[in-house]
Amino acid sequence: MSIKTREEYIESLRKLDLKVYMFGELIENPVDHPIIRPSMNSVAMTYELANQDEYKDLMTAISHLTGEPINRFCHIHQSTEDLVKKVKMQRLMGQKTASCFQRCVGLDAFNAIYSTTYEIDKKYGTDYFERFKEYLKYVQKNDLTVDGAMTDPKGDRGLSPSEQEDPDLYLRVVEVREDGIIVKGAKAHQTGAVNSHEQLIMPTMALKEKDKDYAVSFAVPSDAEGVFMIYGRQSCDTRKLEDGADMDLGNAEFGGHEALVVFDNVFVPNERVFMCKEYDFAGMMVERFAGYHRQSYACKTGVGDVLIGATALAADYNGVPKASHIKDKLIEMIHLNETLWAGALACSYEGIETESGNYLIDLLLANVSKQNVTRFPYEIARLAEDIAGGLMVTMPSEQDFKDPKIGEYVEKYFAGKTGTSTENRLRILRLIENITLGTAAVGYRTESLHGAGSPQAQRIMISRQGKLEDKKEMARIIAKVDYSKDK
Amino acid sequence: MSIKTREEYIESLRKLDLKVYMFGELIENPVDHPIIRPSMNSVAMTYELANQDEYKDLMTAISHLTGEPINRFCHIHQSTEDLVKKVKMQRLMGQKTASCFQRCVGLDAFNAIYSTTYEIDKKYGTDYFERFKEYLKYVQKNDLTVDGAMTDPKGDRGLSPSEQEDPDLYLRVVEVREDGIIVKGAKAHQTGAVNSHEQLIMPTMALKEKDKDYAVSFAVPSDAEGVFMIYGRQSCDTRKLEDGADMDLGNAEFGGHEALVVFDNVFVPNERVFMCKEYDFAGMMVERFAGYHRQSYACKTGVGDVLIGATALAADYNGVPKASHIKDKLIEMIHLNETLWAGALACSYEGIETESGNYLIDLLLANVSKQNVTRFPYEIARLAEDIAGGLMVTMPSEQDFKDPKIGEYVEKYFAGKTGTSTENRLRILRLIENITLGTAAVGYRTESLHGAGSPQAQRIMISRQGKLEDKKEMARIIAKVDYSKDK
Amino acid sequence: MSIKTREEYIESLRKLDLKVYMFGELIENPVDHPIIRPSMNSVAMTYELANQDEYKDLMTAISHLTGEPINRFCHIHQSTEDLVKKVKMQRLMGQKTASCFQRCVGLDAFNAIYSTTYEIDKKYGTDYFERFKEYLKYVQKNDLTVDGAMTDPKGDRGLSPSEQEDPDLYLRVVEVREDGIIVKGAKAHQTGAVNSHEQLIMPTMALKEKDKDYAVSFAVPSDAEGVFMIYGRQSCDTRKLEDGADMDLGNAEFGGHEALVVFDNVFVPNERVFMCKEYDFAGMMVERFAGYHRQSYACKTGVGDVLIGATALAADYNGVPKASHIKDKLIEMIHLNETLWAGALACSYEGIETESGNYLIDLLLANVSKQNVTRFPYEIARLAEDIAGGLMVTMPSEQDFKDPKIGEYVEKYFAGKTGTSTENRLRILRLIENITLGTAAVGYRTESLHGAGSPQAQRIMISRQGKLEDKKEMARIIAKVDYSKDK
Amino acid sequence: MSIKTREEYIESLRKLDLKVYMFGELIENPVDHPIIRPSMNSVAMTYELANQDEYKDLMTAISHLTGEPINRFCHIHQSTEDLVKKVKMQRLMGQKTASCFQRCVGLDAFNAIYSTTYEIDKKYGTDYFERFKEYLKYVQKNDLTVDGAMTDPKGDRGLSPSEQEDPDLYLRVVEVREDGIIVKGAKAHQTGAVNSHEQLIMPTMALKEKDKDYAVSFAVPSDAEGVFMIYGRQSCDTRKLEDGADMDLGNAEFGGHEALVVFDNVFVPNERVFMCKEYDFAGMMVERFAGYHRQSYACKTGVGDVLIGATALAADYNGVPKASHIKDKLIEMIHLNETLWAGALACSYEGIETESGNYLIDLLLANVSKQNVTRFPYEIARLAEDIAGGLMVTMPSEQDFKDPKIGEYVEKYFAGKTGTSTENRLRILRLIENITLGTAAVGYRTESLHGAGSPQAQRIMISRQGKLEDKKEMARIIAKVDYSKDK
Repeated sequence: MSIKTREEYIESLRKLDLKVYMFGELIENPVDHPIIRPSMNSVAMTYELANQDEYKDLMTAISHLTGEPINRFCHIHQSTEDLVKKVKMQRLMGQKTASCFQRCVGLDAFNAIYSTTYEIDKKYGTDYFERFKEYLKYVQKNDLTVDGAMTDPKGDRGLSPSEQEDPDLYLRVVEVREDGIIVKGAKAHQTGAVNSHEQLIMPTMALKEKDKDYAVSFAVPSDAEGVFMIYGRQSCDTRKLEDGADMDLGNAEFGGHEALVVFDNVFVPNERVFMCKEYDFAGMMVERFAGYHRQSYACKTGVGDVLIGATALAADYNGVPKASHIKDKLIEMIHLNETLWAGALACSYEGIETESGNYLIDLLLANVSKQNVTRFPYEIARLAEDIAGGLMVTMPSEQDFKDPKIGEYVEKYFAGKTGTSTENRLRILRLIENITLGTAAVGYRTESLHGAGSPQAQRIMISRQGKLEDKKEMARIIAKVDYSKDK
Repeated sequence: MSIKTREEYIESLRKLDLKVYMFGELIENPVDHPIIRPSMNSVAMTYELANQDEYKDLMTAISHLTGEPINRFCHIHQSTEDLVKKVKMQRLMGQKTASCFQRCVGLDAFNAIYSTTYEIDKKYGTDYFERFKEYLKYVQKNDLTVDGAMTDPKGDRGLSPSEQEDPDLYLRVVEVREDGIIVKGAKAHQTGAVNSHEQLIMPTMALKEKDKDYAVSFAVPSDAEGVFMIYGRQSCDTRKLEDGADMDLGNAEFGGHEALVVFDNVFVPNERVFMCKEYDFAGMMVERFAGYHRQSYACKTGVGDVLIGATALAADYNGVPKASHIKDKLIEMIHLNETLWAGALACSYEGIETESGNYLIDLLLANVSKQNVTRFPYEIARLAEDIAGGLMVTMPSEQDFKDPKIGEYVEKYFAGKTGTSTENRLRILRLIENITLGTAAVGYRTESLHGAGSPQAQRIMISRQGKLEDKKEMARIIAKVDYSKDK
Repeated sequence: MSIKTREEYIESLRKLDLKVYMFGELIENPVDHPIIRPSMNSVAMTYELANQDEYKDLMTAISHLTGEPINRFCHIHQSTEDLVKKVKMQRLMGQKTASCFQRCVGLDAFNAIYSTTYEIDKKYGTDYFERFKEYLKYVQKNDLTVDGAMTDPKGDRGLSPSEQEDPDLYLRVVEVREDGIIVKGAKAHQTGAVNSHEQLIMPTMALKEKDKDYAVSFAVPSDAEGVFMIYGRQSCDTRKLEDGADMDLGNAEFGGHEALVVFDNVFVPNERVFMCKEYDFAGMMVERFAGYHRQSYACKTGVGDVLIGATALAADYNGVPKASHIKDKLIEMIHLNETLWAGALACSYEGIETESGNYLIDLLLANVSKQNVTRFPYEIARLAEDIAGGLMVTMPSEQDFKDPKIGEYVEKYFAGKTGTSTENRLRILRLIENITLGTAAVGYRTESLHGAGSPQAQRIMISRQGKLEDKKEMARIIAKVDYSKDK
Repeated sequence: MSIKTREEYIESLRKLDLKVYMFGELIENPVDHPIIRPSMNSVAMTYELANQDEYKDLMTAISHLTGEPINRFCHIHQSTEDLVKKVKMQRLMGQKTASCFQRCVGLDAFNAIYSTTYEIDKKYGTDYFERFKEYLKYVQKNDLTVDGAMTDPKGDRGLSPSEQEDPDLYLRVVEVREDGIIVKGAKAHQTGAVNSHEQLIMPTMALKEKDKDYAVSFAVPSDAEGVFMIYGRQSCDTRKLEDGADMDLGNAEFGGHEALVVFDNVFVPNERVFMCKEYDFAGMMVERFAGYHRQSYACKTGVGDVLIGATALAADYNGVPKASHIKDKLIEMIHLNETLWAGALACSYEGIETESGNYLIDLLLANVSKQNVTRFPYEIARLAEDIAGGLMVTMPSEQDFKDPKIGEYVEKYFAGKTGTSTENRLRILRLIENITLGTAAVGYRTESLHGAGSPQAQRIMISRQGKLEDKKEMARIIAKVDYSKDK
């Protein structure tokens, strides 16, 4: 049976010889590092739920390669039903972790590379598709967490990869050898990189011939020779280092992370190379990964559920849950969250089969949906802060609350509705702070903006997919415009 | 074969002896009245497309009662696929007519009454369900257009039906006889009433026992004894009466209408009565009809397509289609329109089976979707007016354009991009005027707000369906709130 | 005494020999034409209020040229107090007419031409400033309504004036004679042109040398040889022609209009020429007129006041004024309207003196304020339609209401709150219809978008005036950015 | 000369014997505590700029009590010009500190108490006004920073002060003695409390007779017997404790803070009591303080200037300042910021004289302006995050950047536009992080929502001040509604 338990996952991570830097130091033991641990817990939840009967239908699937049950995060979508279950799994995971659980990037990379390698092979007679299927079997069998890595550092946005002063600002092939390739560069903003067994690399944008060295896709173990990571800071990250920190974390258990992953002349054996200089397919791979990954922002509706729930509790503790403006703001939060959900469902249900046989989401709807994700969580967060009240950002620390002398004043003066627990009230406010300003805000706000492509990237896709010429024709017919009168 | 042609539909309408008043006069021949005709053309399109091979899959279905092919507007949804086809049909119809084609109210009433009568019978041992199936067979066999009528005039919104000074302000049973019932009252805002063969009545809201006389559902032919209609005015309606009016109408062919339908002591035979005083089911019938009908606002995405197309053409004729702010506004229009579409699809795909066996949309998503319909068409319209430019509301009449003397000046000074036809440009601007300010604005704007329930009605449903307690529990777990500490 | 009464104004208009075309026909008597009359009534109100003691402080001023009391619509602003009184006058006029009262274009043109001619003379030694002061004395003495005309038809927006296929698509000097100039072309969207004694022309944009023939400013009487007008259609315009129309007009008394004003080789004597080919000052004149005119959209807050009041009355007649969502929407309407008002006040109070001695508004704030005018009235209108309810667009005509037979049904079924008058309810709904969809919607919505420049025009000015480099420097200091480290 | 220098201010603070708790410990030396120090620097800037000739006109005023020059933060507004200079000073201070400089609460309290005590005396023959003027002279002469303290902890929002289970949840008079009063309770969210020489207390809301013990206003030194403070946490506060922290702070120099100020049976001598149980004036004092303080949010436009500047620099460093969508977003940010500015100016210019002779802002416009402050900074922040890019939340720590080994990789891979400094780029991103997610986000976002009253508090005032009945009358006249027809 290839579905790992939470414990097996954690053990397997420990066996990796990762090189992770944080605050200028090499981390000895990433798995137990208090800043990293919550993000690992979020990934671990993808294993834990897959072992619970209640969630098996969503969290697992049958491999089309082996016929074995596997974690859905390793699955190649065989139907629109699979696409729908994917987003339902993501909402569930968001509800359970209130944070980024990181494993979607791998899932989305699998599906994008799967269909693209099929089409590369068709044109060029290469055998990337078979290689990739073999790699997938390995991943599925070992239930691996894989970082699907796309975004290059990019340097000067006004210049193409090969035009950069430093050619490494986009990851590239520096040497082709008989047995494999040598790659150099880095991938930035890598979600969950430190919690991943493998790094699965894709190019970052459509490429022209002059940039063909940058058209490369491959996989390496996260502890491959030449690979190292520099951990990204998050708002309030060091609260996790405070003595006995619990309440002040808001969400003590779960989190997310990003890192810069550097590839310093890394060797990749041929069987793990899935694109090498076929620059005319870089765009397809990017568009498909981006499409799947825009669908993946379904997870934010799960985080949104938690934030809405926390906000409703804050109103309860304040003693004003019946005020009409409070009720109306909660309705608006639900409304916005469900509008996002409708988008996630619609792009999944309207998915189509690719030539390779897996299913791709509807690209227009996925981009429309993600565009809303760049807006609504900000408004939901604003409404949460509105209902929570200013105390969320002015209350003292947990240490004050627990202090023998000062504690009683905190307890006394921050009491809410008669008969409720001050501690519970403060806990809920800290959770809202966590999602709107703290570590989880990085995921709920900024990454909702930029993850899977910034808003403008979606607008370009909406423009391309929007069938404007068809719409003009509809208008022409209704208005009885006679084109022959236009010269 | 029970699918009528456009011509058969029109002929069948002529045979009705309708009593329709407009501008204080009884209309002799509604079918050919220039103000009514365009709305009839829109309904006729539901017949026309059902006979075209290209659209058969969307526009027709197989009756589950008779096994015969029928127009989908007469169909009882047998699956979520049927629900999805319904919204795709509606978008198509919106694209073809750029207006309200009116026939959805009947379709939605059929499906709401179908499942509700089943459940009434289960509780009370009545035979409404069988009666209604017989009625449906009649409708399907004759491919009738039916006005599903819900909204009562309502009088003082602060009072219940029986509390009104005038008891007729909600339609009610005034007498129960052995062979049937006598009803009195009126239904307001009746979309397409004049183009309908039948009036199918439902109560307008959940009712308590004291209001049980108002819990009534039945069908009568539109020309039944005691039934008459007063036609509602629309913005710019009388342009259709102007000599040779064509360009100035924007959309000369299609339109919509509403009317007040008065029931002045109308007799309904028992076989056409589907609810009579079972007040505890009024709420269910209303909620289901409203749910289906909120889904039906999918049609606005079709009208939106035409408006977006017209706006893009206006930019072309102005000579500025490449300006970045123009392109960006068009993208925003598409984005908003497709967000509506995602809602329509999602609530359909997530439909569930009722006890009676037909399919109901997901109520939360249908309400969320409709809530967006109360907002986005207004913003789409604003963006259309932005790109169209002020000329849309300052240009002279068609008669000036066609005048031998003045016409050349209009032609000269309202020319757009070099080489294009001034007439075409003006036609497109008039179409945008029609949808944003004219007769079609009634449907695209105000009815998007109020049709199938005003915004606040959806907010109440969102609140009810939003599962706030579940969300609180999710937050409680993440924040480690211990309820036992709250007294 | 140079302040005319309402009656004197109307009489003076009758004496003009205007050539106005509408629906392909020359209008015999514009003053009494039912479609034009309401717009004339709005202008007449600028005379009427100037004669009422209560409004003298706002409606009149002392001429700095003659020391005589004059109508403020003829005044050159002598202080920021004058600028503030201007916007207060405009809000008042909006409240009294609920429509466009048209006379601002002249006032804004006076002030823009005044300071620009001063600066042209300073550079070129011309005597435009003196000419213009003489002209102003004539206007003030006779209390004239003057159409300040800027917008050319423009043809292909991608081409400059001289690049157009038809050189007349921008108004230009076709001949310079000893005693004056001959001009040809047209001005589009001319607000109140038919109610104006004079046409005061300005160029439509900044110009380069090749387009210098288009750099022309001058005044002619509205009935000058070669001048004629083609009247623009508005939504619902012909309701004013209906027998006994009153209720259905919503606002039976007041309105606005626009027209195309054609100049077919019109001679302008030198003393009425204020710019002739000094193309380098076209931009200044345009920017100042646009600045003043963007300030003038203060009037919309007055129309907004009426719309908000009507909406509150509609809620009263519906019987639901206490519903929290209704109250909240009314608050939002007020909030948006007062935000517009704050902008109008701020750009006035922050005005600065020009070299010529008159006062110019703060350009950044005026553009910011107008930008909000392109958005908020649409949202206010949407909220009005929300509260009004669907009846606004589905109710029957006034003739049905007054009909001996049908009338009683209309009266009965459209009754609102117990004890209120159905007629009053319908009147208020028609007023809301008038402002949101009808003749006044042209002014309240589309012209709020495009009048005094479309949204993008304001954005360009905001960009220019926004002092971005200063802001960067502030950020640099706070973040301790050391520019010397940037190559 | 009573205007202190920055150094004198700091020295004077050191002399206070404050009791401040943070993280469960009593702070020895608040002035030099790294978490508190930046907030002290912000207050110090109010002293520093008052001594610079360039800013004297804005930063200082002439005391109307003594005729001496004083810091404007101690001034009683003598004219609308003073009100305008106040907001211009606040925008300047926001630009110089990019944070909350805290001293406005005192200024607003001075002006609210000044006019209210005058009116209490008039009704009750008390001598609060004279007492308060003496107190003011003391404040002005010593150029004190005073915490104007209003907000009580409030406990159960559904209960009035005297209904709370714990009577101390609102601050109250527990004993009236011959020489003074004893007070007990706390004030929450006290901005700048720790940097203030004095605490000036006001009631938190309008009160009824049963709550008259809560109607109390007084002043005590911040180190009075029985007063102590518990410092509030902010997002990312402990970054300031990190070794060598500079870049990662974003704004290393300036900040703000809030604290809970506890009054544990504090004695106040009579000459420092300004209200004692005159409950019918609690509402007036609250409304006026809130009004002034809503005006004070003008400061956020200064912070907004810095954020806009930082965002423009981020675009420069990314190499994409010319992209049309970037330019357009910057324009939108400026537009929103200047809309806030227009509100601040308008409510100041439209100020009115109170009975006591000082000037009060226009209450409607101040509330409208603050309502926008609860919205626009959130959208400005979202746009800043959009342009900044995801790197803002994924980049490594300053220690990584400065590390001898890892630093070169950070330098290499986070380079931006060719030729620019990576350090500068990261500094700017950290500044944006600081304002949108970090310590300054508390001030720029959450406090913009809740400071000076939460959004709903403004809506209630907008409703009260919105003159809805006048607006109804305007609509009635236009629509020819005849009230006599309504029973």
